[in-house]
Amino acid sequence: MTGRFITVEGTEGVGKSTNLAFIEGFLRSRAIDVITTREPGGTPLAEELRELLLAKREEPVDACAELLMVFAARAQHLNQLVAPALARGQWVLCDRFTDATYAYQGAGRGLSLETISKLEFLVQGSLQPDITVWLDIDVRLGLERARARADLDRFEEEDVSFFERVRAGYRARAEEAPARFCRINAGQPLAQVQTDIQRALEAFL
Amino acid sequence: MTGRFITVEGTEGVGKSTNLAFIEGFLRSRAIDVITTREPGGTPLAEELRELLLAKREEPVDACAELLMVFAARAQHLNQLVAPALARGQWVLCDRFTDATYAYQGAGRGLSLETISKLEFLVQGSLQPDITVWLDIDVRLGLERARARADLDRFEEEDVSFFERVRAGYRARAEEAPARFCRINAGQPLAQVQTDIQRALEAFL
Ligand SMILES: Nc1ncnc2c1ncn2[C@@H]1O[C@H](COP(=O)(O)OP(=O)(O)O)[C@@H](O)[C@H]1O
Ligand SMILES: Nc1ncnc2c1ncn2[C@@H]1O[C@H](COP(=O)(O)OP(=O)(O)O)[C@@H](O)[C@H]1O
Ligand SMILES: [Mg+2]
Ligand SMILES: [Mg+2]
Repeated sequence: MTGRFITVEGTEGVGKSTNLAFIEGFLRSRAIDVITTREPGGTPLAEELRELLLAKREEPVDACAELLMVFAARAQHLNQLVAPALARGQWVLCDRFTDATYAYQGAGRGLSLETISKLEFLVQGSLQPDITVWLDIDVRLGLERARARADLDRFEEEDVSFFERVRAGYRARAEEAPARFCRINAGQPLAQVQTDIQRALEAFL
Repeated sequence: MTGRFITVEGTEGVGKSTNLAFIEGFLRSRAIDVITTREPGGTPLAEELRELLLAKREEPVDACAELLMVFAARAQHLNQLVAPALARGQWVLCDRFTDATYAYQGAGRGLSLETISKLEFLVQGSLQPDITVWLDIDVRLGLERARARADLDRFEEEDVSFFERVRAGYRARAEEAPARFCRINAGQPLAQVQTDIQRALEAFL
């Protein structure tokens, strides 16, 4: 009796963190034992890798090095936290997962999807999220929200065309796995976004 | 006219750092333009990854996460420093490289050599060292030297049986690439070790 694995995806400022808290509250209201986590990150070592990944630096970051750091953090997170929790029967709710790697490092940076897929298999075997809430929005609107919120990290500093590619990357992932992906129009007022998310989760339950 | 790539390998305390300085001096005396570097490390980001790799921590480090961090640091180091230097015609002298990954993460930690080989190809393509100086020693003697030198890092804390596997891993690599590997008996007095290294380098030149 393993727990369910729910991921939340989308470009900067779509409302992932905001709605993660909403989903957690909804699941608890249904008496589901859920832990909330994020990628890259989720364990002390993986959070240290996240810091290295997000830090702005003078040195150009090699795209392949970035990809390997993402999967290193994922291996640590999966093996130390996610898989044991699922095995205990807990649900795991995660802010970003491997779809983000296909979208950012694949579509965004132009790395080979085949390479990503091989690393995915090395690190995850056949483990996949049970449902992925994809918050989709006009990238400019999301970036405006993200930029109003805080200082920009190394990814948030990218230009609009980068995020257009990332968004198209998410769209391609959603088309490949329509049963798993649940697209939410994140450009709506928050109350409507949450009504839509709740409806999707009720259908999933 | 690309430069030559020389790596120095061996378990803890064999004298890699000591003899790297000796090799650098020898090459300069022959008017060779050489840069000296190390793995994991060699660029600011790769050195930050080195710190994460060597730090002792309460959290167990997943072996696959460790392997991916090693190759992430290597991708950054190769693309930002080693390959551009070789392309300019400089020689590169490096304290540890991918043979150490086969020995430590492969033979030592028991990770699949096939997985390592795939990551090697992803990160390096066909780039290999031109000559590898392998300082070989009874592991207990090397560990005594390393332990007299400084505080132990996360690797140096491993037990003797781990380093016996690592040493056997190096031996297997040397048998697979006898033309590239130059085994030096590092249990000898330093002056004799350096005479042997110099003779090997003269043959290589
Ligand atoms: N539907 C929405 N309408 C308007 N603002 C929103 C909406 N959802 C989130 N926000 C705001 O946008 C900003 C970014 O939200 P956040 O949850 O941090 O996004 P993410 O985690 O996806 O980057 C926050 O200030 C948040 O309050
Ligand atoms: N041939 C040798 N005989 C005795 N001591 C040595 C010899 N080579 C190195 N040492 C000493 O052993 C210690 C470890 O050497 P070091 O170069 O730091 O090893 P490594 O870099 O391989 O860990 C240092 O204190 C060094 O002076
Ligand atoms: Mg967020
Ligand atoms: Mg050393």
